[in-house]
Amino acid sequence: MNFASDNIVGASAPVLQSLVQANDGAMAAYGADEITKRVKARFAEIFERDLSVFLVTTGTAANALALASMVPPWGLCVCHEEAHVIDDECGAPEFFMHGAKLAGLPGAGAKLKAESVAAYVQGLPKAIKQMPPKALSISQVTECGMVYSLDEIAALGQVCRENGLSLHMDGARFANALVSLGCTPAEMTWKRGVDILSFGATKNGCLMGEAIVVFKPELAEALDYRAKRAGQVVSKGRLIAAQFEGYFANDHWYDNARHANRLAGLLSEGFAALPGVRMAWPTQANEVFPIIPAAMDKALRAAGVLYHPWTQVSLPEAERVGTDEALIRLVVSFATKEDDVLRVLEIARAATSRQAAE
Amino acid sequence: MNFASDNIVGASAPVLQSLVQANDGAMAAYGADEITKRVKARFAEIFERDLSVFLVTTGTAANALALASMVPPWGLCVCHEEAHVIDDECGAPEFFMHGAKLAGLPGAGAKLKAESVAAYVQGLPKAIKQMPPKALSISQVTECGMVYSLDEIAALGQVCRENGLSLHMDGARFANALVSLGCTPAEMTWKRGVDILSFGATKNGCLMGEAIVVFKPELAEALDYRAKRAGQVVSKGRLIAAQFEGYFANDHWYDNARHANRLAGLLSEGFAALPGVRMAWPTQANEVFPIIPAAMDKALRAAGVLYHPWTQVSLPEAERVGTDEALIRLVVSFATKEDDVLRVLEIARAATSRQAAE
Amino acid sequence: MNFASDNIVGASAPVLQSLVQANDGAMAAYGADEITKRVKARFAEIFERDLSVFLVTTGTAANALALASMVPPWGLCVCHEEAHVIDDECGAPEFFMHGAKLAGLPGAGAKLKAESVAAYVQGLPKAIKQMPPKALSISQVTECGMVYSLDEIAALGQVCRENGLSLHMDGARFANALVSLGCTPAEMTWKRGVDILSFGATKNGCLMGEAIVVFKPELAEALDYRAKRAGQVVSKGRLIAAQFEGYFANDHWYDNARHANRLAGLLSEGFAALPGVRMAWPTQANEVFPIIPAAMDKALRAAGVLYHPWTQVSLPEAERVGTDEALIRLVVSFATKEDDVLRVLEIARAATSRQAAE
Amino acid sequence: MNFASDNIVGASAPVLQSLVQANDGAMAAYGADEITKRVKARFAEIFERDLSVFLVTTGTAANALALASMVPPWGLCVCHEEAHVIDDECGAPEFFMHGAKLAGLPGAGAKLKAESVAAYVQGLPKAIKQMPPKALSISQVTECGMVYSLDEIAALGQVCRENGLSLHMDGARFANALVSLGCTPAEMTWKRGVDILSFGATKNGCLMGEAIVVFKPELAEALDYRAKRAGQVVSKGRLIAAQFEGYFANDHWYDNARHANRLAGLLSEGFAALPGVRMAWPTQANEVFPIIPAAMDKALRAAGVLYHPWTQVSLPEAERVGTDEALIRLVVSFATKEDDVLRVLEIARAATSRQAAE
Repeated sequence: MNFASDNIVGASAPVLQSLVQANDGAMAAYGADEITKRVKARFAEIFERDLSVFLVTTGTAANALALASMVPPWGLCVCHEEAHVIDDECGAPEFFMHGAKLAGLPGAGAKLKAESVAAYVQGLPKAIKQMPPKALSISQVTECGMVYSLDEIAALGQVCRENGLSLHMDGARFANALVSLGCTPAEMTWKRGVDILSFGATKNGCLMGEAIVVFKPELAEALDYRAKRAGQVVSKGRLIAAQFEGYFANDHWYDNARHANRLAGLLSEGFAALPGVRMAWPTQANEVFPIIPAAMDKALRAAGVLYHPWTQVSLPEAERVGTDEALIRLVVSFATKEDDVLRVLEIARAATSRQAAE
Repeated sequence: MNFASDNIVGASAPVLQSLVQANDGAMAAYGADEITKRVKARFAEIFERDLSVFLVTTGTAANALALASMVPPWGLCVCHEEAHVIDDECGAPEFFMHGAKLAGLPGAGAKLKAESVAAYVQGLPKAIKQMPPKALSISQVTECGMVYSLDEIAALGQVCRENGLSLHMDGARFANALVSLGCTPAEMTWKRGVDILSFGATKNGCLMGEAIVVFKPELAEALDYRAKRAGQVVSKGRLIAAQFEGYFANDHWYDNARHANRLAGLLSEGFAALPGVRMAWPTQANEVFPIIPAAMDKALRAAGVLYHPWTQVSLPEAERVGTDEALIRLVVSFATKEDDVLRVLEIARAATSRQAAE
Repeated sequence: MNFASDNIVGASAPVLQSLVQANDGAMAAYGADEITKRVKARFAEIFERDLSVFLVTTGTAANALALASMVPPWGLCVCHEEAHVIDDECGAPEFFMHGAKLAGLPGAGAKLKAESVAAYVQGLPKAIKQMPPKALSISQVTECGMVYSLDEIAALGQVCRENGLSLHMDGARFANALVSLGCTPAEMTWKRGVDILSFGATKNGCLMGEAIVVFKPELAEALDYRAKRAGQVVSKGRLIAAQFEGYFANDHWYDNARHANRLAGLLSEGFAALPGVRMAWPTQANEVFPIIPAAMDKALRAAGVLYHPWTQVSLPEAERVGTDEALIRLVVSFATKEDDVLRVLEIARAATSRQAAE
Repeated sequence: MNFASDNIVGASAPVLQSLVQANDGAMAAYGADEITKRVKARFAEIFERDLSVFLVTTGTAANALALASMVPPWGLCVCHEEAHVIDDECGAPEFFMHGAKLAGLPGAGAKLKAESVAAYVQGLPKAIKQMPPKALSISQVTECGMVYSLDEIAALGQVCRENGLSLHMDGARFANALVSLGCTPAEMTWKRGVDILSFGATKNGCLMGEAIVVFKPELAEALDYRAKRAGQVVSKGRLIAAQFEGYFANDHWYDNARHANRLAGLLSEGFAALPGVRMAWPTQANEVFPIIPAAMDKALRAAGVLYHPWTQVSLPEAERVGTDEALIRLVVSFATKEDDVLRVLEIARAATSRQAAE
């Protein structure tokens, strides 16, 4: 029972099948093939507008290239202090941005409030010693499993426009957020002010397929050169594109995300119903963050359930994890089986009863 | 009939099959899985020694990371003036090396002579205005389809050791060179002084699978961090590793390379036998560079044969391409059919006869 | 009455005179001259050991080069969250370090405690997503005018050694700290574990003369190349060196610093004695940080006294600046006249009486 | 008798005097002072138009910042293969441009012809593997002491406009070129298509005073941030500005350059009149490049005359330096004495006679 991440499984069947089919025959290299062209057109349909798309192999590359397209080497990019871009990518953004700086702001649930961003940006000294703020990056789903509402995104978009920032969305779990909000891709992005998007597909069913989707045309101008010099233009490019064809066909990506979110909800409700357990943050997508008794943590691990402990940095104001408690993260993927969810809950429940009995 | 590159086909069947098999089940992400471990051990077997291996998705990334591991930002990397690293990667090496410089030297057949490298390096001013030379990068196979002999590599390795340079081999067509020389991987690399290798597998059968193989341990020290911040650590890493398992199994990679080299030989002999045709450089691997009459060039293109015109920069001293001639490159891959080779030769022969008749 | 900074005056007379004398005649360029050689030897005498010295024109260049010598592009440099290097140099360190990251930790008085640094460094995840910590940078005098004691430096040096970090001291006000502690340069640096020092001389009497002093030899290896490619190797280099000759001769630099510190003490005591005034941080060098009534702030400005408001970020735990108060910084330089100090105090005192009368 | 460079002397008297005068009193730091403002206005007068000026301490910094303002990290900057920017600055341009590439073209006398530049730029592949050309940098005076005519600059400017390049002039010896052509600063720069200029003043009389003069406004937009993060914003900035005040006052800079050029002419004519001596390139500014018999070279060195041997790379097509000859460079500065010139010629002449007598 592996709930460590949504990266631990391979591709979903339709994606793999699409890849295998695309493997036959000869086609132009470096993304000049027909499949890549079709996929780019498909992105435009999905987002209901003209846009530019760049296919890459990792979310880190997507994020770092997106940030570099917005922020000059002497600029500042605002993000949450626990954002993946600032915390988990070994400085990839700083490398791709040639030394530009990430400024991490606090916020419960790893969410940024529009007023915090505005206050921070407007409070910066106006002087050449101060790197000027050029962009905001938000994660949808956040690092604490929360989903920005459409109004929240719109408010952040407004702050960005008023202060001359571009707005990036790290959509590593884009589909999970979409399904959670029940809105269209357009509504969750450019219609609310998002300028550039890291469209994650690997976690939700691809092998290694991520896309940078650009809504503000000037951000796309040099991205092909940037991607090439970053070693991100795959020679047999159709094999990336083909993954997206399988991903998009018959709303497969929605199905995958719905499955993961539904089971995460089940898992969350199950944990929440147990005595001594509470949720660090509400379950809004495919990640569950219960605060559990240490004994339950031990029992789960003993039973071979795999998951990560989590940081308390972005807990709500009043919340604290006790010394005999553990804050953990359980990630549900498109491939997780309902039986595994039920078994985990069973083990947790048993640990509770046992403790009660003692 | 597509002879444009060895990138235009998908993966070979055993590689694809290995990928599909590896897709099932849950495994640790980011290369901490069992398949990746097995593949790394396999590399050590193949090269008959301890080494470090880093799996990446493109040859450009492999080269740029390898060069960055050898050359500090203020250093110089010597290469051929037509090397892929200096000419075809949109500055990826300069990006990864943080502004270090590539110095391109001339040489027929895109080969560097040990004495030219020594003379260049020793002739550089000893002053802080001069970026100090730190590495040499050679391409095996070269950009003109030639193969360095073991003695030539050893001589370059000697020059490197004597002058404090590390030696990198861009092995985008490593297997083709190996089969051409009939030697072992060890003999063609570390036993002749190569310190770090871009081990190309994509052109010879993988989907997107390249490896950086490090023989000089200090060059490997930070490569994991470098790869991570370059966005080259794929989350579902086993899907890269699995390609190599299929590639290595049953000497499949040798078979692929042998096939390509054999058909390239056939193609080369066929062209060479035609009146008015001569070879710009000898055919030593899977690329053929005939200088053909303009009429033949026209006829081939009219018949739908796809290939690229080539640059004359590295022609042998006395050689020139006439105004009514064309220097072209035909690349044969593991997937090329003998029938296609024969048909191309037939079209070329017909063009010759027609011209003779006129 | 200008207390805005110690940068607002020119050079002190002996420094200027030394420059003028050095101007005559022909000498080798780019620091290969006799004066530069003498000055380097002088540094070794002053610090009582072998060392390397690099002369540059700005403190930002000195800091950025020093940090770049310690931290690879994928590394982390710990510093105080208000350090000059992280806050006031428009990303120069990130530029010179090629995207390495500065991690700012909190601490009252802009001082870092050894235990905080140790806890932070040891708490970082051991994973390739985590940039590895490679250096610590401290400011002596701190950004809040405080001076690390010898024991405090030694404790930080110890933490650095135990955790594989190099230790940098930003000595923009090195002489002021030295005079404050009454110790030798050696005692305040390498004898306590400092590996590399930005030796500031501009604020204390030079025109534009800063030195990078390297105690750990490997940090000096490439600094000449780094300085050259940063455009910091002045062609008429003797004119930088000559400033240091004047600066060091007859302990002139000590005299300058003693003067500044003494007057700062006078200013501090004067303010502290006024009703409604308290010190944000103790006055330990040449900067005074009183928290004053808003009316006094207004009166001082109305009288033409120039100074900067200051940030509250590093106030002691219990301290807060009231809404009708102002936290200000007054900087005293080698050129400040005692009369000006007395007049400022007079204006402040008058403001107090006036307020009392109202 | 030191003819090694024009960097080997200090500042000229009026420049030094201006510096000394500016040293008194308090002024705003970091270039916000009155002298800096006056100097910037003076530049606008001298160049007869609106412009932006950035004062820095070295020519390398001026060049590297200028190039970085024109060329994005994935772009190409064309220059002569012997240009100072590509050969003598330890990669400073590549550092400041974040890995952008310099492409060196050949040309006699280190001059580039408009048609060569056009042919090169238009011949580059249109593909993402090819870094796109964004700028041309020319040296006025060239590295072989030659001066571009106004028509030649105009033709290069035309090529730049037609191909979307910005045009940079490295004016390390700007005044010497100006005096040589007898034109105005405007005529030699923006009126002929120059977009940005490294205005060198150190070699011609300043201590360390260089200016980046920007005619194309968008190139100036971020230069203040770039200069700051390069550690090039001197805190006591007025002391740089003051040098320019002395330099410009009473046409002092013209006088200095006229003196140097006149003596260089004298030296050149004297050498040219000697048997066995010819000029590698015509003497057009303050540098003389005679090809002399080895015996004369030996005699000059024996007599203590200091100068550098020079490279033959940019000799005119038919010219070669014999095995018993030496190509040398003699640089005359504003401070060179006519007597020294005459003595050098006397020694050379004596060497000739002696050889004739043998």
